[in-house]
Amino acid sequence: MNRHPYIPTNAALMPYCNRFREFCDGGDSPRAFLERCLEKIDHLNKEIKAFTALNIDGARRAADAATLRYKAGKPWSHIDGMPVGVKDIIETADMPTQMGSPVFADWQPRFDAAAVSALKQAGAVILGKTVTTEFAATVPGLTRNPFDPTRTPGGSSSGSAAAVGIGMLPAALGTQVIGSILRPASYCGCFGFKPTVGALNRGGSLDYLSQSCLGVLAASLDDAWAVAYAISSRVGGDPGYPGLYGGEKPKPGYRPDRLIRLDTSGFDKLEEETRNIFEVSLDRLCSAGVEILSRHDLPEIEQYEVAIAASLTLSRKINTWEFHWPLCSFEDRLPGNLSEVSQGRLAAAEEMTLADYRKWIAVREKTRRLHHNLAGVAGGFVTLSATGAAPPGLESTGDPVFNLPASFIGAPAVTLPCLSVKALPLGIQLMGFKDEDEALFSHAQWVENILLAGH
Amino acid sequence: MNRHPYIPTNAALMPYCNRFREFCDGGDSPRAFLERCLEKIDHLNKEIKAFTALNIDGARRAADAATLRYKAGKPWSHIDGMPVGVKDIIETADMPTQMGSPVFADWQPRFDAAAVSALKQAGAVILGKTVTTEFAATVPGLTRNPFDPTRTPGGSSSGSAAAVGIGMLPAALGTQVIGSILRPASYCGCFGFKPTVGALNRGGSLDYLSQSCLGVLAASLDDAWAVAYAISSRVGGDPGYPGLYGGEKPKPGYRPDRLIRLDTSGFDKLEEETRNIFEVSLDRLCSAGVEILSRHDLPEIEQYEVAIAASLTLSRKINTWEFHWPLCSFEDRLPGNLSEVSQGRLAAAEEMTLADYRKWIAVREKTRRLHHNLAGVAGGFVTLSATGAAPPGLESTGDPVFNLPASFIGAPAVTLPCLSVKALPLGIQLMGFKDEDEALFSHAQWVENILLAGH
Repeated sequence: MNRHPYIPTNAALMPYCNRFREFCDGGDSPRAFLERCLEKIDHLNKEIKAFTALNIDGARRAADAATLRYKAGKPWSHIDGMPVGVKDIIETADMPTQMGSPVFADWQPRFDAAAVSALKQAGAVILGKTVTTEFAATVPGLTRNPFDPTRTPGGSSSGSAAAVGIGMLPAALGTQVIGSILRPASYCGCFGFKPTVGALNRGGSLDYLSQSCLGVLAASLDDAWAVAYAISSRVGGDPGYPGLYGGEKPKPGYRPDRLIRLDTSGFDKLEEETRNIFEVSLDRLCSAGVEILSRHDLPEIEQYEVAIAASLTLSRKINTWEFHWPLCSFEDRLPGNLSEVSQGRLAAAEEMTLADYRKWIAVREKTRRLHHNLAGVAGGFVTLSATGAAPPGLESTGDPVFNLPASFIGAPAVTLPCLSVKALPLGIQLMGFKDEDEALFSHAQWVENILLAGH
Repeated sequence: MNRHPYIPTNAALMPYCNRFREFCDGGDSPRAFLERCLEKIDHLNKEIKAFTALNIDGARRAADAATLRYKAGKPWSHIDGMPVGVKDIIETADMPTQMGSPVFADWQPRFDAAAVSALKQAGAVILGKTVTTEFAATVPGLTRNPFDPTRTPGGSSSGSAAAVGIGMLPAALGTQVIGSILRPASYCGCFGFKPTVGALNRGGSLDYLSQSCLGVLAASLDDAWAVAYAISSRVGGDPGYPGLYGGEKPKPGYRPDRLIRLDTSGFDKLEEETRNIFEVSLDRLCSAGVEILSRHDLPEIEQYEVAIAASLTLSRKINTWEFHWPLCSFEDRLPGNLSEVSQGRLAAAEEMTLADYRKWIAVREKTRRLHHNLAGVAGGFVTLSATGAAPPGLESTGDPVFNLPASFIGAPAVTLPCLSVKALPLGIQLMGFKDEDEALFSHAQWVENILLAGH
């Protein structure tokens, strides 16, 4: 495969939810849809390496069953028959779950994780496992960027973003603890949804971090929402959390009165071209009637920007302490199988104390309140999803500076694949407020419509 | 084994922390201590059936290593060399973890759970796995009450309580979501510590319930604290929680100025003899200078009692929704292996919605605030740990009515094995306030001293 022309990203995407009527009418079928996905996979995956495992026979059986349900007028949900990829940090009873690490080489879980169980209950077709970095952290897997195979797809949800971005799948599960959904979505040109922390049940995933969140990479906002809703309505959020708020279908696009532009410390890293693209996008939103506020307008925003700038270091410390136990148990039983990065993390964790950790989560809680207090000021935040197009090379998954706020705050955020730079995808990001994922989607739909108008 | 004379419970217990000096002096050793435990196990376990697995060779090696560390004057912690049992809902890399269910028959986890990893880091000797009810819920395992083998040991931490109560072990891990630590401790005559929810890391346990909590069954308050501290200081609490507050050693006993007697709806179930025993105990605390408040003294206490009375039904609903996914995945892969009770729970979960669940956890949150508001009124709560001695028969693990408040509220609580009825153990319970586990222990130490004075 050579470089794809990138105009526009959406040409490569394969939305599923807009096929519903044709599935019911018989003009299309989940089985035919699946075969189109398999054709793309057959054509592209050898080079892109988005999958660690595929269950093609099982998928065909499931798609046939879904096809019959539509014919009978009784689909189980809006995602009945949807081919879905599952990040390989999430356990599946049908396929190995290798966590991007030799510690779990060929490991076959006995049961499905909560999200997988819910997706099956909704009729989704679990087609394959997608590549993750080691333990969903920073050490890359084999996946390449589908728009330029010499570049990273981003991480840690690398395979999910690459597969969806190039149209091998309409949706795939991802997880984000720093920037693992929003950034790869930006690099691979798909939609990325990082819900409110705790909104989707993480049970059965190797995912023990307090700010980690299950989410969706998808070919459209409707697909992202439908997958998230299918999970939350069937198995809820994390235990003790209220789960995803909102109805079965996303509400129509709705213009926010005001958005806060969030610079983060990433703004200084932007090349001029990227910066201009962002400013032009903001101008278009302005022209369409949104008031854009910034750190220069209100001291509360400036205070929040300052707090956010310190949060990447703090997040990494929190994650390191929380990862102490699993890394310790892995190293104890299978010494020599951790990457150098994980070994370093384990060593760093051993120097930390519970008292340190308490201070860090207290600062996080304080920053969350700063965020929450801005709910009265604007309908949400707008920023980029990455510092530019996917960087060249496969040794790093890129800079998460624009993605961290949503993780640290636990707020919902989406990447919209509406921009491009250097003929490669670039995402614009909207971030909302805790438990207001539905409003975020409504604003995101409106922003997408504005930015794509005329394209 | 025939019925043991029960005067007093503590005669059967085997405290470990008070051996510290003799281990250092060489007058005793962890290996010799272990051999005394093994002798008791050899003598009693065939009838009591407290264990599902033992790792005797591994334990002897670990005890020898600890013995050398004391000799060198360099023990790793206050529990270095302590033989510990691990409830069989918690994963161990050295022994199978069967969850009290044929679904996990002979299942061998690959890695140690967080608590097990921490205990090993502290030098503890992981001697065996202890019997749990099915998935730590209500269907009993094979364990019998060590003071009368025709009676239940309580559940779900059945094996842990039986083994510690009769002195096979100084401490064992338990978990409690309704009454699974405090009640078996009462029936088996040992100390039970149910910490503040989230205070001890549950990672690596089959334990996905929001009000479930890892805790300790122990031969003394010092042992219970030392085990809990060893875990929390090394692997923290559940991710995002601040972990157990307090120092390495519990503070000395300290008289609370006021305690609230908590009747719960269990008070009406007490036989006259049990009720008198409770009232006499309260009189002794009164005589020693504690003011006892009750629902008749303050409307806030009455309001809290009313809320608590409704909480058992609500807890079961919350647990049922949260258990939906794992039961569903188990039944999907290994149909026919769930107990009738679990099948019923699965069917009930399928009738529930996320909207229902949200209402239930909102009521729980409101009740937690009622509890918290009483912090200004008294130093804690006093009640029984069970409605009486262990009931006859092995088909039920007994009534959790007195144990539920601490679980529902997420507050710390201890069972003190200081009472007896019908020549069988009966525990008195102290409950404190969130994150004030250390103060609870201090009050508990004082209450123990008062109630055992002269015995």
